[in-house]
Order: sequence, then C-alpha cells, then structure tokens
Amino acid sequence: MATALELLEAHACFGGLVQRYQHYAESCHAPMRFSIFLPPPGGDQRHPVVYFLAGLTCTEETFMIKAGAQRYAAELGLILVAPDTSPRQTGISGEDDDWDFGSGAGFYVDATAAPWSAHYQMHRYVTEELPALIHRHFPASPRQQGICGHSMGGHGALVCGLLHPDRYRSISAFAPVCAPSRSPWGQKAFAAYLGSDQRRWQGYDALALLQETAGTSSTPILIDQGRADPFLEGELKTRWLEGLKDDRLILRWHEGYDHSYFFIASFIGEHLAFHARHLHARSAA
Amino acid sequence: MATALELLEAHACFGGLVQRYQHYAESCHAPMRFSIFLPPPGGDQRHPVVYFLAGLTCTEETFMIKAGAQRYAAELGLILVAPDTSPRQTGISGEDDDWDFGSGAGFYVDATAAPWSAHYQMHRYVTEELPALIHRHFPASPRQQGICGHSMGGHGALVCGLLHPDRYRSISAFAPVCAPSRSPWGQKAFAAYLGSDQRRWQGYDALALLQETAGTSSTPILIDQGRADPFLEGELKTRWLEGLKDDRLILRWHEGYDHSYFFIASFIGEHLAFHARHLHARSAA
Repeated sequence: MATALELLEAHACFGGLVQRYQHYAESCHAPMRFSIFLPPPGGDQRHPVVYFLAGLTCTEETFMIKAGAQRYAAELGLILVAPDTSPRQTGISGEDDDWDFGSGAGFYVDATAAPWSAHYQMHRYVTEELPALIHRHFPASPRQQGICGHSMGGHGALVCGLLHPDRYRSISAFAPVCAPSRSPWGQKAFAAYLGSDQRRWQGYDALALLQETAGTSSTPILIDQGRADPFLEGELKTRWLEGLKDDRLILRWHEGYDHSYFFIASFIGEHLAFHARHLHARSAA
Repeated sequence: MATALELLEAHACFGGLVQRYQHYAESCHAPMRFSIFLPPPGGDQRHPVVYFLAGLTCTEETFMIKAGAQRYAAELGLILVAPDTSPRQTGISGEDDDWDFGSGAGFYVDATAAPWSAHYQMHRYVTEELPALIHRHFPASPRQQGICGHSMGGHGALVCGLLHPDRYRSISAFAPVCAPSRSPWGQKAFAAYLGSDQRRWQGYDALALLQETAGTSSTPILIDQGRADPFLEGELKTRWLEGLKDDRLILRWHEGYDHSYFFIASFIGEHLAFHARHLHARSAA
C-alpha cells in the first residue's frame, strides 16, 4: 500500500512550488516531515533531485526558509527535498532534553542501541524510504539523485553519498562534521545510538569512509568551509581532509564566513550548479 | 553626541556583511534594533540605501533571513536596512497581548494617543532618526534612498515615500495594506495610536495619500500582489488601486502567490533592480 502523504502547506515560489508534508515512516515507526521544492513544470519531463540534510536544531523547514535555494533550483530544473533531522515525539525518555542529541539530532545513522533503535533509523529513512516516496509521488528521476547537507547534515550527506555510490551521483557539504567519531557532538551521538564499540562508529565516519573508498568510488564531492566558523577546530575537523589527496574532492575555504545560513545562502547556487552538472550529465549518458 | 551602536551579530554574506545592531532611539524613548546588509566594498564609494519595512509579527531579523535579498543587493551595490516593526518592552500595559497590535505592530505611525504616544513614534524613527544614524555610521549616500515593505510594512513604505518625496526616490511594496483606515488591522491600530477622529487617520492612509499627491509628486512606485493572498479582500484592498489611473504606479498581479516570504523572495530581485535603477539615475543626474 502506498504511504499516505498529508500536505501541511504549499506556497508558490519562483514559478514553482514549496510544499511541506507529513507521512508515517515505516523505517522510523514514527510520523516524519519533509519539505519539497518543485521547479516550474516543463512538459512531462522528470527532474533530477537534490536532497538537503540540515544540521543540529533544524527542522524540515529551515533550508527552504533560509538558504534561498529555490531561485537556483528553478533555473536549473532541480527538485529539492529537505527531510527533518530526526523523528520527534517518539516517547523515548529524554528525547527533547539536549539541543545536540535526540530530537533534532538524529545524525543520519541507523541506531542499534536501545532505546533509540526503535525509532532513530534515519540512514534508512533518508537513503531508501524517502527517495522511494519521492519517486512515487513527484516527477522525480530515480537515476538522478544528488545529496547535500550542512554541519551534522554535511556529515550525513558525505556518509550517505559514500555508502551508496549507486544511488547518489554527486555529493556536497557546507561545514560538515568530517570525523564525528573524533568530535564531541559525534561521540555523544554515536555512543548512544550505536553503542560503545567504536569500531562500529567507523561505518558512519566520513573521513574513514573517504579513506576506505579511495580508488573504488568516483562520486564527485564539493565541500565549502568558512574560516571564521566557530566549530571548525573542535567539531568539524575540516583541516583533516586537506591531507587526503583525493581526486574526487574539491575543498574550498572561504575567508570571513561562519557556520550560519548566511554562509550557505552565499554558495548554495554554486552547489546546485555542481549537482546539476553531474546529474544532467548522467541523464545524457 | 552621536548615538552609540551596539553590534549584536555579524555574518559574512555574498561578499558583504549582514549585521544586527541595537541603539537607544530618541524618537521612541526606547532601545531599537535594526539589521543592515553592506555590499562588498568598492573603494571609497558611498552606496544607495533601500529600507525594508516588515509586516505584523516580524522583527528586524525576518527580512535578512527569509527574503534572499542579499544576493541582489551585492550585485547592485545597495545597502539594505531593516528596522524592527515597533518598540518593545516599553512597559506599556498590554503591549504584548495581541499579535496584530502593540509590539511587532507599530504600523509606522507617530502615535498621538496615550499611552502609545510615549514610545510608538515609528514614522519619525524610520524617516528621520534611523537614516541619520545610517549615514553617520555607514558608507551610505544620503541623497539616494528608496523604501520597500511588506503588508503592514508595505503600507509603511507607501506612506513614508509619499509623505517625503524629498527623502525617497523610489517606493515599492509587496502585498501592502493599501487603505488601513478601512481595513480591520488598520482600524484597530489607528484607533489606539491616533485616537477616534478618523480624519487624522487619512494622513497615514496610502490610498488617500495617492489621491492627494496625484499630479504633485512623481516618485515611481512598484507594487506586487499575489492573487492567492488570503488577506487580499479583507485587509489589503489592493483592487482599489486599480481605479487610480496613476502614472507613478506599476501594479503587478501574480497568479498563485500568497502572503508569505516565498512570494517576497520570488520578486525581491526585481524590486531591488527597480530601486537601483532610480537611485543610480539620481546619482548620475
């Protein structure tokens, strides 16, 4: 049976539509929400899709409200999809206690430790259930998917893209948590969601996955990082990517830019152009 | 003595800067806040300024976060200034009770009725004190000012621009309250801020001012209105402008667009280009 989608709101935007939906997610055993931007229709054409994974404390609304991405997506003919950052109101004790853990902070992993494992299956939700839903209900091309994210969601985009080269043809991130198994936000989340055996954390660590897939995967990756980002040294560890000598990776540093959506807004046009270039190339191939 | 400006936050954005300030406003006898966007510096050049007046429930942050205007202002070399929508925490009894009145709803008038008259001097603040402050502290050109706004702030932009053709060279509005003296939001605000004598309301009624200044003022006016705006008939009365046959006025209708910032974001680029064209023409003259 096809999942029922409940439309929460809809707004005309740059000749297309911003919509927000809720549906019951089988993977998370919980209601989940997402926003979608549909570019102006062009005949019966199906559009490439770029998924955007947001950071700590954000919801499915944040990206559509703050990033100014719709203008570019309308020009490039891209569908944008922004899921929420975790299940909510699951009834798990303490889920709302911390800003950097639990609700709003799912870290895009499939939790294996109780009590989180009952609902926090964000990796499966983002990479399987949500794309299947999008392709069923919207004019999306299933072979043309890119993934992008910010901070915790930058980690998510890198991990989803690196683990599923068959599903994503382009990866990009703003100020990602590059090595969560060695940063405080990531360690706190992984210990609770995955348990204390740190070997299991490596499967969700972008730096470890980059090293592991070097030579076997060729998905292009664009990362933008501001030099004035207050989380750069403690949480993001972006400098560690500089030693990789990885041909897939374009890492750009931006003087004066911080961790905010003002940074994302300034460069999201270039990220979407990067995705469109690789996704449309795929279509032509 | 020059007013002290307290910097609350600053973010790099599109090669320029978004900043938020607080200062003590003499006109309102209260602290006031505003946001400013400074485009990328171009030598010792002074920039034209476009003021943006926001709508009910908004603050000085809303426009900078939601409208996506910085990209265009960076390209056009415009400074953007967005003041708060009212004084706050003045101690006036009931100031926070209603979403459409009191704090967040100053309606850009100089209140003459107690207790509001002690602090709600938003017209003087927006047209005199704030511009003087901007010209003192930032590389702004005092002869090149435009004014824009949304909903209650669209009313404010029309009224400020029409009352001060010597100060503003271009006026634009998104979904403005066109005839506040004949709409519920406006009547509630004007009765409290200006008293029950409705003849005094006409000085702040855009439709009345348009009729009054026809033939004596030539400031160009651009108004965008969505046909799916839920406030169109009850509050905005935009259709009443259609009968004016006013050469100053460009009124554009947009199928499917509502009252949200998704509507503003879709057309703010054209508004800023409109202002830049008239403000730069002034500079060349």
